[in-house]
Amino acid sequence: MVQIIGWGHTKFGKLADQGLEDMMRDAGGEALAHAGINPRDVDGIFVGHFNGGMVGDGFPASLALSIHKDLRFTPATRLENACASGSAAIFAARDMIESGRARVVLVIGAEKMTHLPLAEVTKGLGHASYQAEEAGMSFPQVFAQFAQAYFAKYGDKSDVLAEIAAKNHANAMHNPLAQLHKELPVEFCAQVSDKNPMVADPLKVTDCSLVSDGAAALIMVSDDVAKSAARAVNLRASVQVNDYLPMSARDVTAFEGPKRAMAMALDQAGLGLADLDLAEVHDCFTIAELMIYEAMGLAKPGEGERVLADGTVRPGGALPINMSGGLKAKGHPVGATGVSMHALVARQVTGAADDMQVAGAEKGLVFNMGGSGVANYATVLERTR
Amino acid sequence: MVQIIGWGHTKFGKLADQGLEDMMRDAGGEALAHAGINPRDVDGIFVGHFNGGMVGDGFPASLALSIHKDLRFTPATRLENACASGSAAIFAARDMIESGRARVVLVIGAEKMTHLPLAEVTKGLGHASYQAEEAGMSFPQVFAQFAQAYFAKYGDKSDVLAEIAAKNHANAMHNPLAQLHKELPVEFCAQVSDKNPMVADPLKVTDCSLVSDGAAALIMVSDDVAKSAARAVNLRASVQVNDYLPMSARDVTAFEGPKRAMAMALDQAGLGLADLDLAEVHDCFTIAELMIYEAMGLAKPGEGERVLADGTVRPGGALPINMSGGLKAKGHPVGATGVSMHALVARQVTGAADDMQVAGAEKGLVFNMGGSGVANYATVLERTR
Repeated sequence: MVQIIGWGHTKFGKLADQGLEDMMRDAGGEALAHAGINPRDVDGIFVGHFNGGMVGDGFPASLALSIHKDLRFTPATRLENACASGSAAIFAARDMIESGRARVVLVIGAEKMTHLPLAEVTKGLGHASYQAEEAGMSFPQVFAQFAQAYFAKYGDKSDVLAEIAAKNHANAMHNPLAQLHKELPVEFCAQVSDKNPMVADPLKVTDCSLVSDGAAALIMVSDDVAKSAARAVNLRASVQVNDYLPMSARDVTAFEGPKRAMAMALDQAGLGLADLDLAEVHDCFTIAELMIYEAMGLAKPGEGERVLADGTVRPGGALPINMSGGLKAKGHPVGATGVSMHALVARQVTGAADDMQVAGAEKGLVFNMGGSGVANYATVLERTR
Repeated sequence: MVQIIGWGHTKFGKLADQGLEDMMRDAGGEALAHAGINPRDVDGIFVGHFNGGMVGDGFPASLALSIHKDLRFTPATRLENACASGSAAIFAARDMIESGRARVVLVIGAEKMTHLPLAEVTKGLGHASYQAEEAGMSFPQVFAQFAQAYFAKYGDKSDVLAEIAAKNHANAMHNPLAQLHKELPVEFCAQVSDKNPMVADPLKVTDCSLVSDGAAALIMVSDDVAKSAARAVNLRASVQVNDYLPMSARDVTAFEGPKRAMAMALDQAGLGLADLDLAEVHDCFTIAELMIYEAMGLAKPGEGERVLADGTVRPGGALPINMSGGLKAKGHPVGATGVSMHALVARQVTGAADDMQVAGAEKGLVFNMGGSGVANYATVLERTR
């Protein structure tokens, strides 16, 4: 098995003075120190980074070597699977460790976005769409199609989406690394207003995740190395499922890739949802979080709103979701997101989540997604000690 | 161990009617058929692709699923390490197989470049430089610095570079997949002329590799699957060494990363250069091939020209280099290059290289490089049967 023994995480948000390399260095250096790993013992480095033209650094893996002189000549590789690039890096690290080629791996996810005008960010992210059919379509427009299809089948759920936004904003109040520390009442999120305009009907500003700079890092090791670590979190299950890139090739109400990935991860772990203490899931848009409730089996199709109404997914509920504030309020520097989710769940299951802590948490689920259900990564993390 | 049991390879060159997805489909489909693998048995897909803004497809891994309907839901991941992105994909496949998570992996490398004006290609490739110090510098300018430093230390070797260009052009005459089928006399390559202008002193047009479209693919499998394959090539050694991205942090005459990678690969294989039958190496510029002769230990520093003069690296020599024509004449669709090199050496060691065949070849070296000695991948391939 593979264990996570340390992590680093920059603040997410507008980090005006920090470039991609600075953020990678900060998060990576913090993870090494946290794990108590000497840089010369690192056997491999994997970097999750989307890019999409948003920064000029098209060959970023070796930037990680600048963290410490003893990292020179270490294999360093970039992984990309759109907004799941961070999880792609984690899975590559897992394979390298399980193959026996590495005992200690540094994983970094990073993205720089806020230096660009919003239109340029939208264009950059649009490169994660199928160019032959969807070029020029923005991601809010993509997920608006999911919302429209969902509403057409199950009724207008704008108020439910507002509940999700308000929940995640409230959760982020307890995460000092989150981009936004601002409670947004459900009423505000539910209403189109000057301050909450429609972005792509039915999605309003409050239904969309943030444009963010940030990086997160993990130290992943083999079991023998983990034995002497101060803390260890087991990657109990890890499943990747890719679906077709073109939206025209998929049923947008089915969310098949996410459903398969989470079901297979639980199966691999030999666990049911009731065994989990929390989950961090990919709320790039509020409609995605609602559909993920159903894809993971927490509610039947069309009934995702119930787990909000009965408190299941709220703090103190049976399966609190996005205690970090989620992409919605923690922020979404796309290459960093998957790594951040794993770092946050690792903190939870080791009792190190501070004000976000789910009492007694030992097991958590991560669901990180690239595109609209295209690259789907589900993992189950569990406290070793 | 990991075995290569099949391959696919588009023609390299200006493929005006083919987009990235078309080329991936052609090469990947050919590799599956060649290996006799049923698509439903593929456990993972790794795609090597640089991008650098040259195409809009910033999230290309899942495009590979369109090869066959039974590939839907297969994990598909993009790897990037500049011009060594193809080898990065091969190494990820190796790790996944050696970890026991996969028995059959499809690897595809692909790049689309010729649809752009040359200035845009130059700009795209420039994203593989260190942006903080080298933004706006072209790759011919980068390698011109290597040539200038080499010439300053060992004398003007323009005529030697011309010999390398002429050799690789002559070799490409026997490779139907090569972009250029045109013999260029040494005299032509050695002279600045209207048809061979200086690009970045001392590098002329004939010292530079080509702008190309193309894709190549491999089927990599575990030993148990290889047992029933029609052919099998063992990945006897595989080493990745990354060096600092900034040129200012490296001695440009030392080529330390390439040297380490090749020495470690030979050491891992338990072989010396004399045990190898051929090599495909990264001649992105003729100066790179000259320095690689020395980095692999075929000649002392400054004496690389000797192995041209004595015929060692020519067809019929002790270690023929770039029988395919190399990046120089075969073409250099950057994400495809590492996969192409492995496919070509696999063909050689199985006696399937047709007119390029090195008689009796059983073992070959691949050296694929991202940036100017930044991401260095060295492998030794050996015939299993």
